[in-house]
Amino acid sequence: MLPDHLNVVPEAWGFGSDGVDDARRQYQVYMFVGEKSNPDSNHYARPLAFSPVVDTVLMKVIRIDQIPTGAGLKTEETQPWRFVEPKEYVPEALKLREDLKPLRVLQPEGTSYSINTNNVLNWQKWQFRVCFNYREGLLLRDIRYDGRPVFYRISLSEMTVPYADPRSPYHRKQAFDLGDVGAGLVANNLALGCDCLGSITYLDGLVCDTAGEPLVKNNAICIHEQDNGIGRKHSNYRTERACIVRNRELVIQQILTVSNYEYILAFIFNQAGELHYEVRATGILSTAAIDPGVSVPWGTIVHDGVLAQHHQHLLSLRIDPAIGSYETGNQLAFSECYPMPMDDFNPHGNGYVSKMTVVDKPGGLDLDTSKSRVYMMQNNQIRNPVNHLPISYKIHAPPMQRILAHPDSYHFKRAEFGNHSIYLTKYNHDELFSGGKYTNQSRGGDGIKAWADRPDNVVDDDIVVWVQFGMNHVPRIEDFPVMPVEILKVSLKPVNFFTQNPSMDVPPSRQETNQSQLVTREQTTASKCCASASSSSKL
Amino acid sequence: MLPDHLNVVPEAWGFGSDGVDDARRQYQVYMFVGEKSNPDSNHYARPLAFSPVVDTVLMKVIRIDQIPTGAGLKTEETQPWRFVEPKEYVPEALKLREDLKPLRVLQPEGTSYSINTNNVLNWQKWQFRVCFNYREGLLLRDIRYDGRPVFYRISLSEMTVPYADPRSPYHRKQAFDLGDVGAGLVANNLALGCDCLGSITYLDGLVCDTAGEPLVKNNAICIHEQDNGIGRKHSNYRTERACIVRNRELVIQQILTVSNYEYILAFIFNQAGELHYEVRATGILSTAAIDPGVSVPWGTIVHDGVLAQHHQHLLSLRIDPAIGSYETGNQLAFSECYPMPMDDFNPHGNGYVSKMTVVDKPGGLDLDTSKSRVYMMQNNQIRNPVNHLPISYKIHAPPMQRILAHPDSYHFKRAEFGNHSIYLTKYNHDELFSGGKYTNQSRGGDGIKAWADRPDNVVDDDIVVWVQFGMNHVPRIEDFPVMPVEILKVSLKPVNFFTQNPSMDVPPSRQETNQSQLVTREQTTASKCCASASSSSKL
Repeated sequence: MLPDHLNVVPEAWGFGSDGVDDARRQYQVYMFVGEKSNPDSNHYARPLAFSPVVDTVLMKVIRIDQIPTGAGLKTEETQPWRFVEPKEYVPEALKLREDLKPLRVLQPEGTSYSINTNNVLNWQKWQFRVCFNYREGLLLRDIRYDGRPVFYRISLSEMTVPYADPRSPYHRKQAFDLGDVGAGLVANNLALGCDCLGSITYLDGLVCDTAGEPLVKNNAICIHEQDNGIGRKHSNYRTERACIVRNRELVIQQILTVSNYEYILAFIFNQAGELHYEVRATGILSTAAIDPGVSVPWGTIVHDGVLAQHHQHLLSLRIDPAIGSYETGNQLAFSECYPMPMDDFNPHGNGYVSKMTVVDKPGGLDLDTSKSRVYMMQNNQIRNPVNHLPISYKIHAPPMQRILAHPDSYHFKRAEFGNHSIYLTKYNHDELFSGGKYTNQSRGGDGIKAWADRPDNVVDDDIVVWVQFGMNHVPRIEDFPVMPVEILKVSLKPVNFFTQNPSMDVPPSRQETNQSQLVTREQTTASKCCASASSSSKL
Repeated sequence: MLPDHLNVVPEAWGFGSDGVDDARRQYQVYMFVGEKSNPDSNHYARPLAFSPVVDTVLMKVIRIDQIPTGAGLKTEETQPWRFVEPKEYVPEALKLREDLKPLRVLQPEGTSYSINTNNVLNWQKWQFRVCFNYREGLLLRDIRYDGRPVFYRISLSEMTVPYADPRSPYHRKQAFDLGDVGAGLVANNLALGCDCLGSITYLDGLVCDTAGEPLVKNNAICIHEQDNGIGRKHSNYRTERACIVRNRELVIQQILTVSNYEYILAFIFNQAGELHYEVRATGILSTAAIDPGVSVPWGTIVHDGVLAQHHQHLLSLRIDPAIGSYETGNQLAFSECYPMPMDDFNPHGNGYVSKMTVVDKPGGLDLDTSKSRVYMMQNNQIRNPVNHLPISYKIHAPPMQRILAHPDSYHFKRAEFGNHSIYLTKYNHDELFSGGKYTNQSRGGDGIKAWADRPDNVVDDDIVVWVQFGMNHVPRIEDFPVMPVEILKVSLKPVNFFTQNPSMDVPPSRQETNQSQLVTREQTTASKCCASASSSSKL
């Protein structure tokens, strides 16, 4: 029996598949305790130890699972409510710091981009179409620089989030945030002045509701420019003359809320011909009840009685390249660096060389930082006019630990994209989702690996490159109650695609334009209580 | 004989050591061609094939080395000048793009930081001393959060840049940008409105001139705040209420010019208890003459007759931690993740665990992303009151390829820090520079490895953690004439140091404060020529 001021908050999880009696459409519902007086109280700070399973065809509770709260498998009957301190995130429940001064972005002459009614966006020699659908959410097509094709289509293809707790029903926690949930369906309605600073343009997204009717997702996409520090600088020490340009970026962003968790997903263009795909992971950890005094190696205690289980975020970015042309094919290659043998040609032992290898068959590939391995998408038919190398775009992806689930597990089979950082396949018009079309009850075998197993030609052909990246999230207490953004980035950068740094024609950074303010040391202390330095015997 | 409008520009390189007849103090001087009419013409676009060696005690040319310009070792007498197109970077020599609109940062109520006359800076619960010297340049001491010690001292300790070309005299190209050159000595005089936006405070640096007299480096350090997007967000899908805070950062920055090249070095603090050390590599590639039509595997052709040789940037960041206290010791540990065996306890095969290992002796250590290995500095005496784990700060460092020079080479011996991502030593007051005190003529053996070879206690003791990171720079033509910033970051983040996300008390992001501007799609096209979308049969 709960005290009167509390209520129970259910949270439904896709049931997925473990191969055991799971052919019917059902949900595993985790239960939490909220404050009746505050519908935005953080119920994740008060998880309960039972979980109804609901058949969503019959709309009936099939059974109620009891959940272990110790270090082992033992469960017990639901116990009387034990008081747990709340851990709120809404600002009115918190004592806020008061010494943060406003910072505004001002664009007095408006934006440097234009968007026409066909969602074709032009900015700083880049041109592309902004697209949106129920599953992938925001994606870009026909990306060109100065009229030259670079990419045909780039989209987030899938993300899986398998959890580490082996005990039933937690072993079922494996979200497919695109295939199960739909990145477009859960796109946030973005608000002016909260999600971005400066001059902002919003676009709506169009999806279907559950009855098949059109549903407009208002302000699902936001577009703005940002300053990302210095773009390039050189000072001639002989004359002391400095030449500086700033690094202006264009951000096309959407934000997903997947129950407890948030993903801030952005395509970021700059003037140096680079395109970055940025993921900011934030939101609230998925939590579970744990008895006081207990600890387990598959999770971290983040609050009294609250376990945050380890989990992986494994994302799959689909890149359909059109490096330099829609007419010729492309290829995937990688460069590596090797020391030269110490011999008469290299008597002092400093020599090393780079070596390019063309990937000549489809399949899964790995990163290798010990060799400085860098993958690049190339057009072997179009050569750089200065150095005669194939025009290319390279891929900088953060290394990841492969999916930890056992290769015989359904978790692994359903997310078979999670075992390699790179996959290469030949283009096929019906292959967009690396975990397969229907992930929710999938038993695997329906995704990227099957396509990569075909003996297709992938050299000078219509190829697709899949970049897997992510993080193994071993929670810290600092990730609770709302996690500070963890930023992951895949960067696509030109390699011998241009004949020089394409940002050379960006106007210099000048005080006349930037109108920065000089603040003296004295001004910084004038109106503030300046704490004196602490002392230490070691200082 | 050069045409009248051209002149020869010398560029002196530290001679270093290859163990061969190099005990006298000498410089290897590379020669380039400039335009007399423009003292800032880019002479790196016109390298010459001879190189005087200068004795800097006698101030005399000892000899002139002829440089090979083919793929092999053959050299020839200096040839008549062959015209090479200039490749300038000064804006007046370039046709600049005209469609970039101004973007300004406005801080109407001033800065959120204060700096007293002892260079103690207070910002958003952080407090630290800003220091500067001739060799390390900018460094920070006594870094505390909310009064709690975190780090005693953090400094860039060394950087070496060994080049890949094995041929004499190029094999000598191995700069030690701190030990040979002095990061403080080559610090830029930073200019308002060019190197940063918004409200900026400058600090001077004090060094010695060649006569031992005090020399003030004006505006050697700049300090400003910046907005780095969303700091955290959660939307309750039940009520549709979103809570957002922005990610305000404080940047303490200096910029080095080391002849051709620039390093933008910054300590970046945020409100979530994180400290990032950011390196932006930019400037001009060090170039060499190459005959038309020749290519070599240790460099890239970036301009007519211009070879940019591969090189590594290997940086060493020295962290003297004081996690939680100056009184107790610290330790270094790493966590890794391992799959659980598939058995009765883990029947579905999804289980995995994290495992913490304390590093119990000094030495060199490596990253291992295949196990999600994360190093952390811990205070084992002070436990988190909620989960009873040691309070810690973890280290996120980008993986690097180890130094490629042969272990028997002087290049390797002089930069022995370059063979491991992490070194752990016991604190010793005279051990600040991981490549040794005197790098210029060092023959090695005088740095971090010797210290790590001591059988010191490093558990619950006064330890120093050295983080090596960098990049293997295989040049692209896009890196010329001035390279777009390549950004490297080492991040230090709290792990169970606090009892929750320390940025929970940051005020929400609100339009009232941020005053962003809504720009409709129609407004973006109103005054611009909106190019129509290109078509493709595949679209």
